[in-house]
Amino acid sequence: LKKEANKRIKYIFFDLDDVLYDTTLQYYNARLNAIRAMIEAGLPVDLETGYRILINVIDEQGEYSSQHFDKMLEKLGLAYNSRIVAAGVVAYHDTKLAFLKPYPETISTLLRLRDKGYFLGVLSWGKTIKQWEKLIRLGIQHLFHKVIMFEEIGYEKPVPEAFKVSLKNLKILPSEALYVADQPNPDILNANRAGLITVRIRRGKYRTEEPDSDEMVPRYEISKLSELDEVLNKILKAKKQ
Amino acid sequence: LKKEANKRIKYIFFDLDDVLYDTTLQYYNARLNAIRAMIEAGLPVDLETGYRILINVIDEQGEYSSQHFDKMLEKLGLAYNSRIVAAGVVAYHDTKLAFLKPYPETISTLLRLRDKGYFLGVLSWGKTIKQWEKLIRLGIQHLFHKVIMFEEIGYEKPVPEAFKVSLKNLKILPSEALYVADQPNPDILNANRAGLITVRIRRGKYRTEEPDSDEMVPRYEISKLSELDEVLNKILKAKKQ
Repeated sequence: LKKEANKRIKYIFFDLDDVLYDTTLQYYNARLNAIRAMIEAGLPVDLETGYRILINVIDEQGEYSSQHFDKMLEKLGLAYNSRIVAAGVVAYHDTKLAFLKPYPETISTLLRLRDKGYFLGVLSWGKTIKQWEKLIRLGIQHLFHKVIMFEEIGYEKPVPEAFKVSLKNLKILPSEALYVADQPNPDILNANRAGLITVRIRRGKYRTEEPDSDEMVPRYEISKLSELDEVLNKILKAKKQ
Repeated sequence: LKKEANKRIKYIFFDLDDVLYDTTLQYYNARLNAIRAMIEAGLPVDLETGYRILINVIDEQGEYSSQHFDKMLEKLGLAYNSRIVAAGVVAYHDTKLAFLKPYPETISTLLRLRDKGYFLGVLSWGKTIKQWEKLIRLGIQHLFHKVIMFEEIGYEKPVPEAFKVSLKNLKILPSEALYVADQPNPDILNANRAGLITVRIRRGKYRTEEPDSDEMVPRYEISKLSELDEVLNKILKAKKQ
């Protein structure tokens, strides 16, 4: 009996982007509004063309470049124009801030899970400082018992080792940890390999992506965070049998 | 008579920081709020100490570094803490945005001067893209007939040549141009050398700074933008004599 109780979930870990808030919508709107503002400031293209070229530039330069709008002008064969670029930058940042809001059910779900006695954690990759800024702006940083950024503990990607080290530091077994994430690869794949109980949330740009291998198949699937209670009930029932 | 009319002021140029909005207040509040947020996130200092150390770091690293808060932790002998740094970054940027607002009299003064038939320009130094972002966020970018950033035309500082080239491109004589700025050096000094009619506005952190030489003495002094009408009247009267 004691052994089974130990196997119960103790910690619930969340990936950040598209899991705790709608990152896909945020970026889509920020980019679209940037193009709108640049057109208003004199960029001689229509919205669709502008958006398409921006996506092109982002694909080529990576998400973290600060030169996207400069490069857009270049691609369009236009001279550099600081007024147009600044208009894009301002609209982009304002829109990003406006849409940096938790899903409607994020905070209530986190609070309910805490009340039920679960420890809550963030397990996220990407630039540590940027991920922390998001948590703070979302206003949810105090709700977690532990925030772990893989970059900060020395892992650029969520490799199995990154999960194992994180859990070991918390003195948690992989089987006691639920991990909620949106991407079959690398999130679910590597958490599965590390032995965590994986929950895939079907939101954001990876919503319709299907697993390429069995190792990318999550233990559970949900379409929003509030369905986690159901997942936890299923796990409790399974353990009792 | 015609010759006198030609000598009348045609263009009024404005420096940006502390001239069109209260940059000193903006930075003071942004820094103070950043320290407050860092203390709330766990920085073990009081507000005064934190602020003093930040100012120290800025003096050492320059205003444009993005490592001010990292360096603060280092100076305090503390380990890097991304949560504390992110808290500072978020509060800093939010406060900077909140205080990026024109003086109460900025827009009405600019509109009144336009209505009187003057052309309005910005003549500013600093990073072009940042200065344009400010103009756009201030919502005053459409009020100017011309925005000239010295950096963009090849001058890092407001040397006399920078003024002369700008005026030549606009086909304006220095004596037809009023220049409103806050710093005796380099703003007023170099505009005087280029032959513009200088107006010093006593606002912001250089408010109490006295000229070191005769060349830094402006032709006129005002304490707020709405006093420009009076300056223009004086000039008109002087020309008629």
